[in-house]
Amino acid sequence: MEHLSMPPLSRVAICGGTHGNELTGVYIVKEMQRQKQDKVGSLSVTPVLSNPRAVDVCKRYTDTDLNRCFTSALLSSPITDSTPYELRRAQELNAQIGPKGSESAVDLLVDLHNTTSNMGLTIIMYSISALPSHIFKYIQTKMAPVPVAAIQLDLSLSDCYSLDSVGKNGFSIEVGPQPNGVLRADIFNMVKKAVDLTLEWIEKFNSGCTFEGGDIEVYSFVKSIDYPRDPVSGEMTAAIHPKLQDNDFKLLQPGDPLFLSFSGETVKHEGDALYPFFVNECAYYEKKIAFHLARKITKTIPTLSVKSN
Amino acid sequence: MEHLSMPPLSRVAICGGTHGNELTGVYIVKEMQRQKQDKVGSLSVTPVLSNPRAVDVCKRYTDTDLNRCFTSALLSSPITDSTPYELRRAQELNAQIGPKGSESAVDLLVDLHNTTSNMGLTIIMYSISALPSHIFKYIQTKMAPVPVAAIQLDLSLSDCYSLDSVGKNGFSIEVGPQPNGVLRADIFNMVKKAVDLTLEWIEKFNSGCTFEGGDIEVYSFVKSIDYPRDPVSGEMTAAIHPKLQDNDFKLLQPGDPLFLSFSGETVKHEGDALYPFFVNECAYYEKKIAFHLARKITKTIPTLSVKSN
Repeated sequence: MEHLSMPPLSRVAICGGTHGNELTGVYIVKEMQRQKQDKVGSLSVTPVLSNPRAVDVCKRYTDTDLNRCFTSALLSSPITDSTPYELRRAQELNAQIGPKGSESAVDLLVDLHNTTSNMGLTIIMYSISALPSHIFKYIQTKMAPVPVAAIQLDLSLSDCYSLDSVGKNGFSIEVGPQPNGVLRADIFNMVKKAVDLTLEWIEKFNSGCTFEGGDIEVYSFVKSIDYPRDPVSGEMTAAIHPKLQDNDFKLLQPGDPLFLSFSGETVKHEGDALYPFFVNECAYYEKKIAFHLARKITKTIPTLSVKSN
Repeated sequence: MEHLSMPPLSRVAICGGTHGNELTGVYIVKEMQRQKQDKVGSLSVTPVLSNPRAVDVCKRYTDTDLNRCFTSALLSSPITDSTPYELRRAQELNAQIGPKGSESAVDLLVDLHNTTSNMGLTIIMYSISALPSHIFKYIQTKMAPVPVAAIQLDLSLSDCYSLDSVGKNGFSIEVGPQPNGVLRADIFNMVKKAVDLTLEWIEKFNSGCTFEGGDIEVYSFVKSIDYPRDPVSGEMTAAIHPKLQDNDFKLLQPGDPLFLSFSGETVKHEGDALYPFFVNECAYYEKKIAFHLARKITKTIPTLSVKSN
């Protein structure tokens, strides 16, 4: 087993309200700010309300999706009078807790999200690196029997568009089902626990614990599927089939129902057996995505411990 | 048993998209329009997309809540340059399928709504009159074992603010849980069935069936409860308690938990045992309503048949 050692973590950012109508993160961050919870042992913890304007109006965003603004290209684009609010805010956040890819960036950035899909608690990583993978494994073990899944998007750091790519390490915690603009106490508590476990893991890591390597199962993004549409008007002609609805991460076999049209016909899955996720996510209607499909893969992660100074 | 006879119904309006992000009604009405489903036997059926501007942007409303614009006072208020879009649209709808309180109004107006609350299929009536009550009873019987509840708001016709008050008879069909901006096939099918049963009832009524009177159980609105708030900032300090969440129409006893604060304290119910509904409805956050409370009452409805000409 490979053994990796890394310097201790000194700064972590917990971000919420990157999408202003995903209320779990909004209220967890506000509560951390209210309690002035900025130190855990030697670790500095910064709670960040990422998109305060969108939070104020309880919308996903005001001009453009903030969580698509963190590619290296966009972060270095010049600001003009016509720059959308969210891109300005992305550069502001990058200055505060980044800059992305630099030595000044926070050691870990955790971004809190909600989905209307029945995904439970899911850790989303743009690549599988050792530290976020170990935290995922820790959360998964400690939260059992609550299922915790991991998704890999397989993007380079530079191309990664999401806020969590601004930290030296980062991941998103995506929890559902919860409607946009609604706060559920059960989901609040679940995410609060995942945040507490993350901080607990860092404490243990910093104080010298060795975390054994091993295999983790990860859903690796393959492609997105749109709703069936009228070829002329472009309007949706079907909804997610009741047999697919709420069945994120359940293997979809060829012939399984995908959509039920408004006049009653079933559209079936063709091609490889794959795992659906983000099934019927509200915010993806405008992105023309009914659900994503993934392959389940096994990744081996190295044993990890802190590098003594 | 009292026996009432009424003239046959000749015109019914099925309205959806009164709130533009409640997608069940939007897609049912669009599908009826596409299928040019405007006659059922001798009955003229008009599918109406109530708030097309809000539907286009997938928001509840653009300027003001359309479903609060149908009081007699607002419907007769003069239109000026500063009149909100929804009030103009209310007067337009009133001209098209009303006018409210007049002989020209449609015989029945059914308005289709969604809620994020776990209310299942609920019929909401501003008053308990014979015809809507019989249709409720018919839907309830035919859809069993799916539970169907009825809510009475107890408003005069003139004070009633909702679109369904524009017809000579009217009710709303409220179905959840469904997030705003999301369409679930199971809920689409449930509401489609309730609409079909309504039209089937009218066919039977018009063709001379006698509908026996009897007792119906109705939840009668008592009061609304707001979230606990910080006295200075006015911000919410608690979410609906997990034991109340999803438990619409389950009797709330004194001492039962209502809210769980972000720091972990439970707020309990005080006062009479009452039935909660619209628990954690998304659109009511801005109205400062965490849930409504109702008394369960029994109403006796008369036997009903058509009046021969």
